[in-house]
Amino acid sequence: MDRRSFLKKAGVAGAGAATAAATTLATPAIAQGNMELKMVTTWPKNFPGLGTGAQRVADRITAATEGRITVKLFAAGELVPPFESFDAVSTGTADMYHGAEYYWQGKHKAFNFFTAVPMGLTAPEIDAWVNHMGGQALWDELSAQFNIKPFQAGNTGVQMGGWFAKEINSIEDIKGLKFRMPGLGGEVLRRLGANVVALPGGEIFPALQSGAIDGTEWVGPWNDLAFGFYKVVKFYYWPGFHEPGSSLGVGMNKGVYDKLSKADQQIIADACMAENNYMYSEFVANNGNALETLVNDHGVQLREFPEPVWDAFGAVSEEVVAEVADGDDLGKRVYESYLKARQAAGGWTKISMQAYTIARDRVLGV
Amino acid sequence: MDRRSFLKKAGVAGAGAATAAATTLATPAIAQGNMELKMVTTWPKNFPGLGTGAQRVADRITAATEGRITVKLFAAGELVPPFESFDAVSTGTADMYHGAEYYWQGKHKAFNFFTAVPMGLTAPEIDAWVNHMGGQALWDELSAQFNIKPFQAGNTGVQMGGWFAKEINSIEDIKGLKFRMPGLGGEVLRRLGANVVALPGGEIFPALQSGAIDGTEWVGPWNDLAFGFYKVVKFYYWPGFHEPGSSLGVGMNKGVYDKLSKADQQIIADACMAENNYMYSEFVANNGNALETLVNDHGVQLREFPEPVWDAFGAVSEEVVAEVADGDDLGKRVYESYLKARQAAGGWTKISMQAYTIARDRVLGV
Repeated sequence: MDRRSFLKKAGVAGAGAATAAATTLATPAIAQGNMELKMVTTWPKNFPGLGTGAQRVADRITAATEGRITVKLFAAGELVPPFESFDAVSTGTADMYHGAEYYWQGKHKAFNFFTAVPMGLTAPEIDAWVNHMGGQALWDELSAQFNIKPFQAGNTGVQMGGWFAKEINSIEDIKGLKFRMPGLGGEVLRRLGANVVALPGGEIFPALQSGAIDGTEWVGPWNDLAFGFYKVVKFYYWPGFHEPGSSLGVGMNKGVYDKLSKADQQIIADACMAENNYMYSEFVANNGNALETLVNDHGVQLREFPEPVWDAFGAVSEEVVAEVADGDDLGKRVYESYLKARQAAGGWTKISMQAYTIARDRVLGV
Repeated sequence: MDRRSFLKKAGVAGAGAATAAATTLATPAIAQGNMELKMVTTWPKNFPGLGTGAQRVADRITAATEGRITVKLFAAGELVPPFESFDAVSTGTADMYHGAEYYWQGKHKAFNFFTAVPMGLTAPEIDAWVNHMGGQALWDELSAQFNIKPFQAGNTGVQMGGWFAKEINSIEDIKGLKFRMPGLGGEVLRRLGANVVALPGGEIFPALQSGAIDGTEWVGPWNDLAFGFYKVVKFYYWPGFHEPGSSLGVGMNKGVYDKLSKADQQIIADACMAENNYMYSEFVANNGNALETLVNDHGVQLREFPEPVWDAFGAVSEEVVAEVADGDDLGKRVYESYLKARQAAGGWTKISMQAYTIARDRVLGV
């Protein structure tokens, strides 16, 4: 639709013959000509996992079309500020974004469900919901209101509970704690009495060092190791209640998407879904390796949140998440569909993945 | 390489111009012309999850290339018998297969690790190993010996322990049991005193009905519900120790693959990886729904294997799997890499997915 975002490219090898052929061949790929798609992202350039994953989505599409569609990636701030990525794609300033849907909760609170909510779905469960339990249709309906076609394109897996200067033995230890956690998880901690602050990534380490905050969550062992939080605080709590499998997404300008050939739509869909698999597996692999480094080389103390603390996390999370759904009809339908998936897919997880790994790890000492 | 498996197709709309263009354009896609790739599979036509997943891989490639590469699927037995799929692709009778790598253990025992082994990796863990912990390079090396390029392309997730006529309270209850379980899991049960039989899918139900077998494993709630085992036996045990995340694979004739353009190689890789994500999520969704049906509508009794039984499963599994590695140098390297991934990725699973779902399910009553 918005032609400004399509750039005709000229001057490929043998361009004379190719151009002549383009005028006579009826195949849509040639007839459309080469195009460049601008992908904006909410991540710093090559940020491990997220930024590199966005780059891989771009590269997969470019490679699969042999450059006929060249996806050019703009890191956060290069074309638009990160949180304006959604508007940029909606209006056609950019053609697609890679980001986390919960960043758009100001547009509609239901976007939260397509990344992660506290006490929500794990990575395999959210994939099950989106692909096979009605999630994609609801997401399409939601995003179409903003002229966007959405795809899953990455997952961090379960995030860690965070870094704490002192042990958390009861919910009393949360009260008054100066803690960095954004989003709905942060709201849960706030209701439990914490002084919650939202700091961007780059400001966390200095704030920990100066004592401006007592602790922080970030992502998981892989990203947390790189930030060096272990140099300041030693208690690393598991598991996080707040983001149990954050799904990353690609949103495409719907006008641009609808005008693509079926073949190019398939290439884009497969590139996103492949990256959804690849990025999640990267987090599993690298978190596993980084966890060993944190514990063995840096003396990090792993701690599990006690059950009464989890009881409080759970009760308040359910309140906060229900309020997210307390909007229009679509929001309610998304919430109900999500809860149904959590019960059915979660019931299966319990007697399969969960039970198997408990038994395996006990017997083999994993 | 083997030109027999490439079929030039003629007669598309505007074929005159297209053919003329093909002789003058230097782009590899056109220069190669249209081709048909034969995909043989080890699954019955449209068998839910596995057969339909193989068909989706074929359809993704055909759609993404707009039929320039048309992948024609042959169900088990249509072109070659299912277990001859590997040889068919290796020699060029077919161009690619979709199947389970452990079917090729007669070629090399290390193929077992690329599907599943008892007490082994879950779906997210095997993806982590293959994509990011050295698995793919080892698999490429193994398959290249047979002129094949391998890809992951689906996963069943954790399989159930199986259907039993009577409860399993101790390892004594396994002894003398006439039980259907193929592969390495079957060997474990045999060493534990069971009379293990290997029956193809279609023969299981009658054998259960006649009492020829006392029980069987199959896949999980979704596929097991369709087979109706609940009509004969009521105890359904979880979780299975024998196949904790069976990865399905595509193997491509390496000569055919190597001659494709980089763009077509990317399309095929993305199609396989997308299906790897999509099929696994389908099993999670449908197992969740089918589990509710089995329990609520058919009175199936879910039972968990007791810890001492798991101790025996674990000890004997480790013996059996170590023997699988007891071959050549490559087999040993695959085994060592696999064990290392199990420890690192498994350590992460334990404090993330496992711990999170335990806490969530306890608090919310999932």
